This record gives sequence, structure tokens and C-alpha cells, in this order.
Amino acid sequence: MSIENISSAKSFGGWHKQYSHRSSVLGCDMRFAIYLPPQAGNGTTVPVMYWLSGLTCSDENFMQKAGAHRLAAELGIAIVAPDTSPRGDHVPDDENEAYDFGKGAGFYVNATQEPWRQNYRMYDYILAELPALIGEHFPVNDNAVISGHSMGGHGALMMALRNPGKFRSVTAFSPICNPVNAPWGQKAFENYLGPKQADWADYDSAILMSAAQPTGFTPALVDQGDADGFLKDQLKPETLEQAAKNTGYPLTLRMQEGYDHSYYFIASFIEDHMRFHAKHLGL
Amino acid sequence: MSIENISSAKSFGGWHKQYSHRSSVLGCDMRFAIYLPPQAGNGTTVPVMYWLSGLTCSDENFMQKAGAHRLAAELGIAIVAPDTSPRGDHVPDDENEAYDFGKGAGFYVNATQEPWRQNYRMYDYILAELPALIGEHFPVNDNAVISGHSMGGHGALMMALRNPGKFRSVTAFSPICNPVNAPWGQKAFENYLGPKQADWADYDSAILMSAAQPTGFTPALVDQGDADGFLKDQLKPETLEQAAKNTGYPLTLRMQEGYDHSYYFIASFIEDHMRFHAKHLGL
Repeated sequence: MSIENISSAKSFGGWHKQYSHRSSVLGCDMRFAIYLPPQAGNGTTVPVMYWLSGLTCSDENFMQKAGAHRLAAELGIAIVAPDTSPRGDHVPDDENEAYDFGKGAGFYVNATQEPWRQNYRMYDYILAELPALIGEHFPVNDNAVISGHSMGGHGALMMALRNPGKFRSVTAFSPICNPVNAPWGQKAFENYLGPKQADWADYDSAILMSAAQPTGFTPALVDQGDADGFLKDQLKPETLEQAAKNTGYPLTLRMQEGYDHSYYFIASFIEDHMRFHAKHLGL
Repeated sequence: MSIENISSAKSFGGWHKQYSHRSSVLGCDMRFAIYLPPQAGNGTTVPVMYWLSGLTCSDENFMQKAGAHRLAAELGIAIVAPDTSPRGDHVPDDENEAYDFGKGAGFYVNATQEPWRQNYRMYDYILAELPALIGEHFPVNDNAVISGHSMGGHGALMMALRNPGKFRSVTAFSPICNPVNAPWGQKAFENYLGPKQADWADYDSAILMSAAQPTGFTPALVDQGDADGFLKDQLKPETLEQAAKNTGYPLTLRMQEGYDHSYYFIASFIEDHMRFHAKHLGL
């Protein structure tokens, strides 16, 4: 699989690079960004943190705004930031170009419904096609962790919960914890997955965590701001907390006083998340 | 002078806030951002770092991308980020809406030519009107430092050089050091200041530094990436280095290998700049 470099910038002694490539899973051209810390290369491989962004985002938001390169450089972790949906003029979009469905809002599912199922397969893209591409082209090893924000927090938790052993640890900022009971999730799942709510459960972190087995536990850290305007209707961290309590899941959920849903919140606590991953990566 | 709050977000225990206000100097409504570290308030005042941004930027670029809040919170320094030009439909702009002149490109001068002289007075705005507004509304003291990037690096150095004692220290990333001999500067100065090159010298840091007196020295730190595409034609740090050599000016100019003109470069070295300021502020 070939990739094309479209930008390079030195950052904290390492490199931030953007690439485009043809995705056979998504049926379109995609862009992703990678941060390679100074430790990577010359025979040395580094672990990878996958970052899944929220609604409307691309590969750029986290790389530009989170302040994560400093920690990735110190700890020796590569960061991969994919886009949040398939892209391109031929890819179907919400009829009103709404921010919360269609392009920029893939919700990290494999769509089963027309006209979405040809392109909206972000679950397979993130879990299989993209890691294969990263492993082929960059000096990384198989040790991976995953994090995300909002819709991407849902994606990170859901993927870790469904794939025990795949990620050494998972963290999320302001995740959509129980999308089957939240307006954003209901709109997306009904369109991508069809009207039967039983088909949605495999993409719901609170439901998945309620059924998790100790052998499949992945250490998890979640931060949520208590001044986040989406907290009550869309994010519902209490559902995740209750699920963890029921199963004994190793979840640390922290309510952060006064913080909102923005990247200022992410930047304020990204150091804790990166060090949490580093610990579970044995760094 | 009244100000209107238009956004607030908690960040690293402090607050990032945006305000709009009527500028009598610029004859238009302006927006600025302030970061208030957790130390500020309840009777405690903190010093202020003014950040001047580069071409096309607003109050947002530095606040979102530089990773400076972490250090401001640690050191107890407020950051004020003004816009880069007057704004509004009634404010004249480049006839082709070029990125390097007119709106987003005020060059921190007081224009003397029509139709610019009514609104394009960023020098007076940054040095007088804005600090008065900040002092009136926020828990800051009179200890100020100044920094900037590219066009804003020119602004920061030029203002420190013309106003001995006003700033405890000055730093710049990739500044336009000798604008009278650079295409960006020549275009801006000819339009804002008229065709007589003698009228441009007061806004040229290399010329100002060549004539600086030891009693007016301000400690200065400049970082420049050697992979910056604007280095040779527009930025010309060698002119500043030569001027400092001639006068004994306390300038540290560092060429940083492999870095470009982007905010990834700024983020990589902002810690050095903030600690440089902290030292000269006696923190």
C-alpha cells in the first residue's frame, strides 16, 4: 500500500508529517497525520498511540492544539491521528451537511445501510487498514494504545472494549459513553446501522463495559469536564462509571471542575493521559 | 473603556478568555484574548506577556497552538494576544485581499497614508490603548514582556527597541528583522508610510538595534529555524546579529536546525522563551 507525503514539520526534535493514501476499506482517498518522536528510526521502533478525534475534526486538530508532541518526544511514543470519516466528492454526506452526521462524523462504525455502507467503515479502517499501513511505512512496533475525544472518545473506548489485548491502555476525554441513549449516537446509529437498536449495542461503550470479562480488561482513564455543555444529554459518563462498578473494570473516571469540551481541556490533561499510556507500555 | 466577554475556557487551572471592545485608536471593534494563570486574582496581580502574531493571524493562533498556557500557569504570567490589524467592513483592505497587506497584516505601524491612516494604527494600539484596557479590567501589574512571530516578531523587537524600559525582556520567533529590505516589509511600508524610505527606519529592528544605546538595552532572545522557507528573502536574521555585534546589544540569536516557520516550531521552543521572560521578570 503506497502513501504520499503532503507535509513535514520538525517538532520537539521529531517530525510531524501528513500523508494521503487510497483506502480500499473506505473506497476513497484519506489523509492521516503521524508524529514520530526523535527516538524512532535507525533501527529503533516505538509504540504508537492512536488518537481518534471528535465531530467535525480532521487529522489536524489534535496535532495542532493538544500539546502532545512534547510528551511523545519525551516518552518515545509515535502518535497517529486519522481523519474522522471517509472524504471525497463521491462520498455521501448528510443532506443538510449537518456537523453531527456524514462527513466529519463517521462515529467509528461499519455502516450496514445504504447509501453509507460502501464508504462509512471507520471501524475496520482504524483497526486494520490503517495500522497495517503504519507498520509497513514507519519505525513503529506492535505495542499500541488508543485515545480520543468526544465521538473519538467513544471510538477509543469501544474499540478497546471489543478487542481485548489489542491496546495496552485506553484513555478518553469527554467520551460519548452511551451513544444508544444520546441524540448524537441515535441519529448516527439509526442512519448507519438501521432502526433495530439491538444492532447498536456493539458500538456502545457503557453496554460493552457492562458485559466485559476480567480476562479482557484494558486499563482505562477518562477525564470529563463538569462545565461541558454536552455532559448531561450527550456524554453521560455516569453510565460508564456504573458499568465499571458492576464488572470491576479498571476504569479511572475523573470529573474535572470548571472545564469545558474544548481542546484547552485536552491540553490541560494530555500529560496525564500520555504518562498513563507510557506506564502501561512499560516505558 | 468597556469590554465584552465573548468566550471563556478553563485551561491549566487558569482561564482563557476572549473579549471584544471598541478601539478609539483604530476606529473599529477589536477582539483580543487573555490567558489568566491561576495565581491571578484575589488581590494578586501578575506580569503580562504580550504576544504579537504573524500575517493572517488573529488572537487565536498562539493561544490554541503554542502550548504556552502550561508555562504561563506554572510561572504565573498572564498572556495577552491582540489581533494583527484593524477589522470590520468599513476598514479598508488590500484590493486583492492579499494575505500580506491590509487586514491581518497591520505590521504594527501607525500608517500615515490614505486610506490607511484612520484605522491602521497598531503601534499605538499595542503600546497604549490595549495595555490601559488590560490594566483596567484584569489583575495584572506593570511588569510587561513582549514576544511575537514573523510579522509579530518584527513588532515585538521594534517596540522593545523604540521604548527602552517598557518591557523587561523581548523574544521573537522567525522575526522580519530588516523589513525595509524585505518584500513583505517594503510592500507594507510603502503603502502605510509612503514612498520615502527614510520614514520606514523607525519600524526596522535591524536599523533600530544598530543605533541602540546601552542605557536602552532590553534582553532579547530570537529563535529562527534554518528550514524556514522565508529565511533568506524575508526574515534576514543576519542583519539583526550584525547590528547586535556592532552595538553590544544583549541579543541571543539561535539558529534551530531543521525547523520551519510553523507553530510546531514555536511550540517546540516556547518554554525557553517563557523561562527567559520569567528570569527577567524576577519570577
